[in-house]
Amino acid sequence: MKKLIEKIVQMKAPIVVGLDSLLDYIPQYIKDEAMAANENPFDAAAQAIVTYNKGIIDAIYDIVPAIKPQAAYYELYSWQGMKAMYETIEYAQKKGMIVITDGKRNDIGSTMEAYAAAHLGETDVCGQKVTAFGADCLTVDGYLGSDGIKPLLGLCREKDKGIFVLVKTSNPSSGELQDQKIDGKTIYETMGGMCEAWGLETPHHYGYSAVGAVVGATYPEQLREMRQKMPHTFFLVPGYGAQGGGANDVKGAFDEHGLGAVINSSRGIITAWKKSGSDGHDYAQQARKAALAMREDICSVIPQPRLPQ
Amino acid sequence: MKKLIEKIVQMKAPIVVGLDSLLDYIPQYIKDEAMAANENPFDAAAQAIVTYNKGIIDAIYDIVPAIKPQAAYYELYSWQGMKAMYETIEYAQKKGMIVITDGKRNDIGSTMEAYAAAHLGETDVCGQKVTAFGADCLTVDGYLGSDGIKPLLGLCREKDKGIFVLVKTSNPSSGELQDQKIDGKTIYETMGGMCEAWGLETPHHYGYSAVGAVVGATYPEQLREMRQKMPHTFFLVPGYGAQGGGANDVKGAFDEHGLGAVINSSRGIITAWKKSGSDGHDYAQQARKAALAMREDICSVIPQPRLPQ
Repeated sequence: MKKLIEKIVQMKAPIVVGLDSLLDYIPQYIKDEAMAANENPFDAAAQAIVTYNKGIIDAIYDIVPAIKPQAAYYELYSWQGMKAMYETIEYAQKKGMIVITDGKRNDIGSTMEAYAAAHLGETDVCGQKVTAFGADCLTVDGYLGSDGIKPLLGLCREKDKGIFVLVKTSNPSSGELQDQKIDGKTIYETMGGMCEAWGLETPHHYGYSAVGAVVGATYPEQLREMRQKMPHTFFLVPGYGAQGGGANDVKGAFDEHGLGAVINSSRGIITAWKKSGSDGHDYAQQARKAALAMREDICSVIPQPRLPQ
Repeated sequence: MKKLIEKIVQMKAPIVVGLDSLLDYIPQYIKDEAMAANENPFDAAAQAIVTYNKGIIDAIYDIVPAIKPQAAYYELYSWQGMKAMYETIEYAQKKGMIVITDGKRNDIGSTMEAYAAAHLGETDVCGQKVTAFGADCLTVDGYLGSDGIKPLLGLCREKDKGIFVLVKTSNPSSGELQDQKIDGKTIYETMGGMCEAWGLETPHHYGYSAVGAVVGATYPEQLREMRQKMPHTFFLVPGYGAQGGGANDVKGAFDEHGLGAVINSSRGIITAWKKSGSDGHDYAQQARKAALAMREDICSVIPQPRLPQ
């Protein structure tokens, strides 16, 4: 989170671009080239995705602190898709970007340790330490309780990694469980309290722990409320743009230093070329334009991000 | 679930073997061969895992209806590990086994559709339909509500696939959230009720819908209670063996036909060779012996599995 906060301040851009790189979003000419070069459809898909992602990263790495690849869209293309995710992460990090893998992983004990090692740490292969996917942060689901989160806290402490726990998601049915009340407290508040507690076991930088929370932009009141109740928990906020949230909806997620949250946009950025009416050859420039517009939109309603004294 | 139930009855074995194939569990001679044949450690790991898994599948496919690969242990070895998972699933299905991918995946809308297509369905690559991982069932987490589950129900209906939703997990801290009460009802009961409701949208076979539930063996009373309250929901029960549950602990998960549940054992089966004191060359036979012992243990306390009239 330290690096993420510093990058946000440096670029004055509390934003993350979601690389949800479905083939549908990729310009035809990139797909044609990939299909011509590969016999296996998944090999072709993976090549197209990597080409596309690298183009976007090249276009935004100097103005956007982080990317968020959504694991589902890579698993969709089998192990070749996972290879594309690996290559995307590696490329983004080489360009200095922070990578938040959106996997919403959850399990217990040794299984969660395996997810932690896979996505944030290292794997021991017969004595050799190797990096499986090597992201900086991972989204996780806390339904299984502390047994699902504790295996990650060691990596947060020792390797300066971060996690974002699902607290209040941006989907319409999120209330079915998350809004239910226990002793007058909603489940998402309970989960939020657990995040604050887990965060105590990690280092704090600029007021925030390594345990963040996913809090959807489609619930602006709850965002404000959670910001108050979870003062040491950094927020990852999905739902801006394509999912309906605007700058005023996410405003409540920020503190008085313009920190406390990073806002995600996926389709709004990576499919911007489709709205421009082009054939897609300018997809990377369109992504940059959309990212700049998003930064301006958000920064117009929050204090300019700065490190607290 | 239809095929699973029929296999359980045919083999009189309500059991599933968890292929949590960590390198630590694999005999040294298999690892040595794989390390000698591959320069890249992850390639070596993947080869060792596939060799080991195939040996176990060959030894048990005539007495065990299903395998359950745990995705975390494959992601641990990067995309090469995911390739090993793909090959394991393909091999087990060729041998007639049912595959339950334990991924505890969860997300919403189009992202959950991507997970569903990846693990249970088909992927469209520029007009070609291809199978990414192709399991028969997937474990999922319902924290996000119906938006996270509905994308799976279409595949359950049309492709005869199944899901298992986390209801009550077998870990010590599962109670932190799951045992909390809402209006006098625990969260795991609420989640159980949601499973019954989601199941109504899928075909029923032998009394059970395509929406199953994960209910841990370490909570025998809750198992009995859930069996009563969720009459159309098939249970996947972890926690037998290495995690401490015994036959009497899982008994309550079964109905009067000896159906209603499939009990998982992972380490108890796949690392049986370690307990035998051998060098591992007999690991497959030891796994078979352990699976037979588990079947006998469980079948000694439940009615013999049979299809209802």
